[in-house]
Parts: sequence; structure tokens; C-alpha cells
Amino acid sequence: MDLELASRLAKPNTTKIILCVLDGLGGLSRPERMRSELGSASIPNLDRLAARSEVGLTVPVGAGITPGSGPGHLALFGYDPLTFDIGRGVLEAVGIDFELGPDDVAARGNFCTLDADGNISDRRAGRIATEITAELLKELAVIKLPGVEILLEPVREHRFVLVLRGKGLGDVVTTTDPQITGVSPLSAKAGDAASAKTAELVNQFVAQAQAIVASHPTANGLVLRGFAKYPHLPQFPQIWGVRAAALAVYPMYRGLAKLVGMTPLACPGGMEEQIESVRARWDDFDYFFVHYKKTDAAGEDGDFERKMHVLEEFDRYVPDLLNLGADVLMIAGDHSTPALMAAHSWHPVPFLLHSKYVREGHAENFNERSCLRGSLGTFPAVDVTPLAMAHAMRLEKYGA
Amino acid sequence: MDLELASRLAKPNTTKIILCVLDGLGGLSRPERMRSELGSASIPNLDRLAARSEVGLTVPVGAGITPGSGPGHLALFGYDPLTFDIGRGVLEAVGIDFELGPDDVAARGNFCTLDADGNISDRRAGRIATEITAELLKELAVIKLPGVEILLEPVREHRFVLVLRGKGLGDVVTTTDPQITGVSPLSAKAGDAASAKTAELVNQFVAQAQAIVASHPTANGLVLRGFAKYPHLPQFPQIWGVRAAALAVYPMYRGLAKLVGMTPLACPGGMEEQIESVRARWDDFDYFFVHYKKTDAAGEDGDFERKMHVLEEFDRYVPDLLNLGADVLMIAGDHSTPALMAAHSWHPVPFLLHSKYVREGHAENFNERSCLRGSLGTFPAVDVTPLAMAHAMRLEKYGA
Repeated sequence: MDLELASRLAKPNTTKIILCVLDGLGGLSRPERMRSELGSASIPNLDRLAARSEVGLTVPVGAGITPGSGPGHLALFGYDPLTFDIGRGVLEAVGIDFELGPDDVAARGNFCTLDADGNISDRRAGRIATEITAELLKELAVIKLPGVEILLEPVREHRFVLVLRGKGLGDVVTTTDPQITGVSPLSAKAGDAASAKTAELVNQFVAQAQAIVASHPTANGLVLRGFAKYPHLPQFPQIWGVRAAALAVYPMYRGLAKLVGMTPLACPGGMEEQIESVRARWDDFDYFFVHYKKTDAAGEDGDFERKMHVLEEFDRYVPDLLNLGADVLMIAGDHSTPALMAAHSWHPVPFLLHSKYVREGHAENFNERSCLRGSLGTFPAVDVTPLAMAHAMRLEKYGA
Repeated sequence: MDLELASRLAKPNTTKIILCVLDGLGGLSRPERMRSELGSASIPNLDRLAARSEVGLTVPVGAGITPGSGPGHLALFGYDPLTFDIGRGVLEAVGIDFELGPDDVAARGNFCTLDADGNISDRRAGRIATEITAELLKELAVIKLPGVEILLEPVREHRFVLVLRGKGLGDVVTTTDPQITGVSPLSAKAGDAASAKTAELVNQFVAQAQAIVASHPTANGLVLRGFAKYPHLPQFPQIWGVRAAALAVYPMYRGLAKLVGMTPLACPGGMEEQIESVRARWDDFDYFFVHYKKTDAAGEDGDFERKMHVLEEFDRYVPDLLNLGADVLMIAGDHSTPALMAAHSWHPVPFLLHSKYVREGHAENFNERSCLRGSLGTFPAVDVTPLAMAHAMRLEKYGA
């Protein structure tokens, strides 16, 4: 739904909506078993819920398009991810409460491990502790570049944010991260004239930083991607007339939620604490976005068994989620991360919506094959929010 | 299909098409039964027909969007309802053969019942007889407003049309009908500068009319909505090259049909007479739109059993409809009106198309769950007309 139409149709109500996003939810079957991670896991609560819900598969961006986390979530929040494009650097910066100024260009950085030939052998530097990343960044503070201030902040594990603060910096700069191992980091290139200076500064920064970290045993290299300035998005609470809270452990998802105007609530402890936070702030908000990261992490690591187990872990929270008593409860994913591929993929993502007004289909379980038989079919993820608002009786009739 | 492409592809033929619209056809299951109105009704003829038809579910406007009758029908006629937006006042006026001039602003009026506090207790004034509405409107004929002529016409039961005729009247005026009970009628407000005068005249009219009807036992109040001028829509017969007739008992649906260029045929007596009219005028038209209102009325009243029974009543006409011998027979709905919600809803609507060229799916019955398994799947209602024209062999090949 067009966001202008959305704000025209939105009407106030006292109903409550919960969107649980299981990051990288969708999977693929192991050839020998014909069952995906979801199909192999023991998830009795999700299965039972699926049988009395509207069920389907969401297409995050479009056929064949593998989304990053940004587009995957934006779509679930009702923003066409082909229209609204947010740089990863901005997501990371906002996620750690870094206040981006209007001239700042932010990038997401990763420490990585380089082999003797300068090729990337581990894209995550063995997932070094956040504290080590913080120490390394302190060493990089000596770097000076002409005409810009350099700001560096650790995010989590091997991840950090670089912000270049100065006048006249464009943000159309190519990644230095090849996103595969066995090759060396790339040079940054400008995509337009206004970004030529930025690309040059980025390459100077990387060269100096590289020299400083070269002796570190694992984090002896770095890559930068997602160069971007702060975007001004239409605000979710204003469009739909809901007070919206985000309950996410990882900074990037809190950042994304903040960009669309949701209020992030602290909950470092995971699902138990996230559910408790929803309960504690029940009267303060109408819409709760609850993010569960473990599914994606297991998928990215190619760990089929672990993805099964973290799905089973999530399943045990489903009764608590139902007991919150929301008018609309959704179980969704921002994209697929099949363990078989050890990466995000383009495959549609299982989805479930539970409310008083559901129309049942033929899905009897919550997995990729069963969701095909649900009443929602395979549909664009950008339709999730209008659907939720309809089920929450928060949309006026269109036309006479 | 884009209407320009449609008129390019349309080719003449002698085939006949019947579109039956069961108003508010779609429903929801009662929780204890897991069967909707259609699923509970005994409709052997529709079930048999579904098994040898192309079957699916139409999305009238978009995900989560609950359509009014106007957009719901426009979509079935092939007009994108987000592009073509028709005010209810115009629909009602055209439906009673009121000739709207280019400067006229029309509104749909309802007599309603107000309680001692001035709040609406019955939005339909106990559905007073059309004759009573006509008498009340005669009393309102004394109202004079500066610079405009006031025209009032009864429609049916508590419904009437108000037309303000005068120069310089915009039609962007908000409703005075809150569309719920327990609150008082609203003031009309202008949505643009050109409509400020209209809004002021409307409020003056309502104040004077209110004073006149105040002593009536049930129809002691009134509300106005759907302010609009006459729109100029592309004409259905010209686009598709068919002579099109509309067989509808209720004025609004005849009005809608006229706006798109169909010829309304009188048939006050309901389905029997509608079918008889189709037969009588078989040689004069190529396309027949047959409207069945009872399903929506029962749904709006929240009467699950009555909706079942009127579906069963319709089912008994199916053999007669088939016997007319059309090349394409469609059974459709403009939107869902689940008795469970006692209102229009956003849920997709069962649809069936029967012709010589159908491709069967897996639907063995005509209800919401079964239609999910049909060969058409869930698809936009705006595709219904191109599909019908294709099955009627009335579209050229696209491209060489």
C-alpha cells in the first residue's frame, strides 16, 4: 500500500500488534532428508498456531532478489525496499545511538583476517570480542585525513562504524568488502562526482589503518561497506497512527527501527527479556517489533542442526507470546538464510498472522512447504503491515 | 490490463459474457465450526460448477484494504480502483436516473435516529419505507440557501440524494456521517479552498433540515457523505467492444454501471426477473452484469444463517444461469462481508469462471478454502475483465 494512502486510511484503535521477526527464518531441505530446518525442528507451538492462522510466504523484495537485513525489515514495516534504500553504515551508526549529522558519511566496518598473500581468509576475524575491536579502534585514532574528522565506534564482535565528518562528501562509494574469502579487499570507487573526494579519503584511511593492524594475530585487516548519509524516511508511527516499540538485542535492528520512528527498548538478554519488556510497556505502545537473531546467525554459519535448535528454542516462547494477548500476532522473517547456503537467499519466507479475523487455509504446520498451502499464498512482504493493520481494525474502508 | 492496451487488443465476436456479482460474497468461519457462510450453505450447483471452472480468490483493491461497493465493482469491471475514485453521492444520483449537471455536487444522505443526547442510535432510522423518506424530503423543500439550488430525491428506504446546484462549488468535503452509533453527526469540512463554500452550505443545510425532522419518531436526524461531482470514466463498451447491460435491483449498482457506460435494464423483482431480462435482451447485448444484493445485506446485519440461506437461494438459480448459454459465466463478489464482522472486509473473494476453455485446478467446492486451491489462485480483481474477454475470444494476440 502506498504510504500516502496508508496515512489516509489509518484510524485510531486500542488494539495491539506484535511482529516477531526471526532473522533469516526461511531455509532449504538437505537433499537426503527432504526437510528444511523448520521442517526438521520440533516446533509444536508454531505448528498448532499455523493451523488456526493466515499463513503464507513473503517475498522480501522481488523474485530472485536476495535482501540484506535492511531491505528485509523495511519491507515487513511496509516500506517498498526498492524505493527506500538505507545504507548499512547508517543502520549500524543509528543502532549504537551514534548521532549522525547531516554532512556525515557512515560506513560499516569489519575486521577480517588476511592470509600471507593479503587475501581474506576469515571475513569476521574469528568473531573477535567487542572489547578487542574497541582496542584496535583506539589504535586507529592516530589516523588524520585532510579536511575531515574521523569517528570510529565499535558495534559488536568484529563490527565497527566509521564516520567521515566534513563538508562536501558524497556517499556514492563502492564497497571495499568483496564479501567472499580468498580474494583481497577492494579499493573504494566513487559512483558520482560528488563522491570522488569521499572515495579518496576512504582509500587513504584504509591504507593507514591496514598498516596499523597488520601485526594483529587474527584482526590483521579491515573492510568497509554501506557508505551512506542519514536518510529521512516517512515515520511508521505517523503513517499508521500507532505507538511503535522495537525489542532487538542487536544494534543494527534497533537502528533500523529508529530510522522509521520506532522507540527501541533495551533488552540485552534475549527473548525472555524481550517478552518481559513487551509486557512491562504494554500500555505505552500499540505495535511491538520483536527481533530474534539466532536463526540467521546459525544459517550464516551453515549450521543446520543449530538452526533447528534455535527454532525449537523460539518455539518454546510462543505460548508466552500468545499470552501477551495481542489482537494481532505475526511470526515472520526478513529473508531466508538456508544453512545449506550459509548465506542470505532470495527464497520466500514463511509467515503467519494470528487474529480473531483470520481465514484459514490448508497449512497444518509452520514450514516452507506447508506455508505454500496457507490462505495468504506467496505474497510481497510489503503487504504485511497493511494486512496487520486491517486485522487490528485500524484501517478505514476505501471508497463509498 | 491497462485500458489503452485493452482497447488495442479488443476484437469483435458474437460471444456472450455474464458476470454475476454476489455482493459481499466472501465470509469468515465461525470459530466453533471452521466453516464460513459459503462453506456451511448447501450449494450443490455452485460446488459442481466450481469443479469444472477456473476458480480463485479476487483481491478487490489491495492487501488489507476494505473496499466500498464502488471500488469493489469498478475493479471487477477492469478499472483500477486506486486510479478511478467515484464519490458515493454521484453513484446514488446516477442510480436513480438523476441527470447531474457539470456544476452539481451530489451527496448520499441517510435519515438516522438520534437519542436524547443527539448521538446516533440507529444509522438507518429503522430502515423507514421509501415513501416516508419521500415525505420527509418534501418537508425539507422549504430550505433555501444563498446562490444555490437544492435538489432532494429519495433513493430507497432511509437513503436519499442531495444535490447542490450552483457555480463555483468544489466537491472536496468531509462526511458528516461518523458511520458508527453512539456519537453525534459531524460537521462538514472543506478539504481545499474551492470547497469552503460547499462545506459551509452543507452545514447550513444540515442545521435547517435537522430542525425540521427533529420531531419525527425514528427519522429525527440525517447524515451526508460522498460529496462528488460527475466523473468522466473511460467507457466499458468502447474499451472492450461489447454492448453491456446491467441488471441490478438496487439503484446504486445501476448508477455505477451507467457511469462506465453499461445500459441498466429495469428488474425490480430480483433474480428471477433479472434472468428473464437477460433472456429477453439476449440479442441486444454481449455482456450482462447481474447484481445480487442479499448476500451483503445479510452479512452487514451479522446474520450468518441468513447469509447461508440467501447463498442457497442464489444457488438454485445457477441452472437457469447456465441455461442462458453464455460463452463465459462468472460468479464473483465485489468484496467480503463476513457475518462475523457485520461489515465489509479486506479478505479476498471467491471467484469462478466457466467457459469452454477453462483449465481446472484442485477446487472441488465453491467456498473460501476450496477456492485457494483453484487454478487462478489469489489474484487482483482488476484482472477479471481481461480474463473474461480472453475466454470469450474477444482479445487479439499481443505481439507478433
